[in-house]
Amino acid sequence: MIKAVGYAAKHSYSKLKRYEFEREEAKANEVEIAVMFCGVCHSDIHQVKDEWSNTVYPCLPGHEIVGRVTKVGGDVTRHAVGDMVGVGCMIDSCRTCEPCRTGDENYCEGPNSWLATYNGPMVPKAKADDGKNHYGRDNTFGGYSNIVVVPADFALKIPAGLQPEVAAPILCAGVTTYSPMKHWGVKAGDKVGIVGFGGLGDMAAKIAKAMGADVTVFTTTKDKLDEAKRIGVTGVLEDDTKTMTSLKSSFDFILSTIPEKHDINPFVKLLKRDKTLTICGALEPMKGVDNSEVAFHRRSVAGSLIGNLADTQEILDFCAEHHIGPDVEVIAIDKINDAYKAVIDGDVRFRYVIDLATLDRNDD
Amino acid sequence: MIKAVGYAAKHSYSKLKRYEFEREEAKANEVEIAVMFCGVCHSDIHQVKDEWSNTVYPCLPGHEIVGRVTKVGGDVTRHAVGDMVGVGCMIDSCRTCEPCRTGDENYCEGPNSWLATYNGPMVPKAKADDGKNHYGRDNTFGGYSNIVVVPADFALKIPAGLQPEVAAPILCAGVTTYSPMKHWGVKAGDKVGIVGFGGLGDMAAKIAKAMGADVTVFTTTKDKLDEAKRIGVTGVLEDDTKTMTSLKSSFDFILSTIPEKHDINPFVKLLKRDKTLTICGALEPMKGVDNSEVAFHRRSVAGSLIGNLADTQEILDFCAEHHIGPDVEVIAIDKINDAYKAVIDGDVRFRYVIDLATLDRNDD
Repeated sequence: MIKAVGYAAKHSYSKLKRYEFEREEAKANEVEIAVMFCGVCHSDIHQVKDEWSNTVYPCLPGHEIVGRVTKVGGDVTRHAVGDMVGVGCMIDSCRTCEPCRTGDENYCEGPNSWLATYNGPMVPKAKADDGKNHYGRDNTFGGYSNIVVVPADFALKIPAGLQPEVAAPILCAGVTTYSPMKHWGVKAGDKVGIVGFGGLGDMAAKIAKAMGADVTVFTTTKDKLDEAKRIGVTGVLEDDTKTMTSLKSSFDFILSTIPEKHDINPFVKLLKRDKTLTICGALEPMKGVDNSEVAFHRRSVAGSLIGNLADTQEILDFCAEHHIGPDVEVIAIDKINDAYKAVIDGDVRFRYVIDLATLDRNDD
Repeated sequence: MIKAVGYAAKHSYSKLKRYEFEREEAKANEVEIAVMFCGVCHSDIHQVKDEWSNTVYPCLPGHEIVGRVTKVGGDVTRHAVGDMVGVGCMIDSCRTCEPCRTGDENYCEGPNSWLATYNGPMVPKAKADDGKNHYGRDNTFGGYSNIVVVPADFALKIPAGLQPEVAAPILCAGVTTYSPMKHWGVKAGDKVGIVGFGGLGDMAAKIAKAMGADVTVFTTTKDKLDEAKRIGVTGVLEDDTKTMTSLKSSFDFILSTIPEKHDINPFVKLLKRDKTLTICGALEPMKGVDNSEVAFHRRSVAGSLIGNLADTQEILDFCAEHHIGPDVEVIAIDKINDAYKAVIDGDVRFRYVIDLATLDRNDD
């Protein structure tokens, strides 16, 4: 066993606190990684607070992990000690279902679905069709810690051109927005709408722009219009009815990145005929959609969940090549509870990234 | 002008009553049709009762019309006097927008959208972007009448193998269900679900079966299970949770035909990854959809509106070729108000079809 330390919450009402625990040594197919940086995702907060009613405690979040390989199992050829690697939302999948066989591990249909980087299998034992947990672990501990140990094929290569703290949020916010844009065929010249301009929206807008799309971000926060201008996209206030009306039936694709229940009806109207609005931020019952607006133009409303391993590598490389990435604010881990509050309060457009070196500060 | 007679409602709270009116003579591109039969669609009831808040009175419904051509305009080559023809939901479209140019008149994006067979333009003057009515008519009178006059290219050919009273509902219920199944690529061997087993559901199930699909209909009415068996498809009661659970993630396409607000969440779960549930029956705000079920399998929820002219001809020919059609109950027009009540009360699986010859009964 390896002694490890991180920040975890013991209950839904608890703050994150320093937490010492043990990890298993790397198996033949695994790598041990010394974590350098870990992004703070809005879903970390949902999970810590048990807002999806499925949290296993203690909850040690973090699925935007960048670090250096410190040990490799005997069968590992993909990575070597010293390599800079990244770990996103998944650390394993069933590897036998149709989605896994075709490289869509994020849609794993095994009895427990994929194994999340923290909080264990996506489908726990109690909800599994066969009542079993094939991963043998009810809980997993994420990247708010000094060490992670994961199967080598679930560790991505961080390209040379990316700073590690910038690469971290690409592993979740980047691929979560890139994957649906790729799947629904966003291409140069398309008019793409991004609803919500927080961590996901910022990445989505930059990626869509780098893909050559004509990008509009929709926000409720006036201050963010300047930020849109700064990154070279159009910003529209959702309550600017005149502009919203003028944009009717003009978008080829719209991605909603808002991380909680919201109303997509104002945006459905903006889609061209036969086009799709995809929700990649919220994982909950949404406000009802007016099927008259959907049916009259044969539009679709879809959902998308993170991205597969190949897409994750692709978007890391794409960001390096196009010199784009999230705007990050690096914080010490003992500031994590303040960071959560700021994210909940709403106006954070940049991504908080924890510098795990700060764990040592009070390590003794 | 031509003297015409039909059944119309003068107010949202009125019953349909005998109504005498005038139609314009056929123009060069138009045909005059002596109506033989007209189907009763659930949307007729919505419209008569102003349940979509857009009814123009007097309201003379009917958009499942079959009759014989009695006069042709000078430019008409498509039909000749004596031909049996059908008229569905549309009698004109802008003919210049992108959907019209590519043969999707039912998604016409002209300022007034398409011209409905009754109730005038889909987008009335007051709601048109340019504040105009390019069709010059606020209201149109449908097929609950002895004569209609329509552009020749909006009249379909009724194939020899189809009885006229059986052909009538294919012009709306048939194409409304066929069009989305064609668009979303339903093919032999696919597992197809049909939600709701009324007039639309009956046609949908028969068409899907004739396409070679493995068809399951979902209903809340136990009596309809026998009917499902009779037409050779599987019937499932929506509240049979054991069966519903066993069907999880197994369907290639699901079509919801329920003609009012309903909850599609139980059916979204039944879709395979990357597959679509399309709502073709309800034109209103729906109950909210749980995006967790949508996103976890990258599913889509779409809407579809009737069908284009080419698809309408195609499904008429397909039904003749495969010897399928709606189960109809032919009624005299003075029974129309009773028929509406029966449809509203819910258990009508067959389609009521008005025999317009019965108009003569009390014509003097």
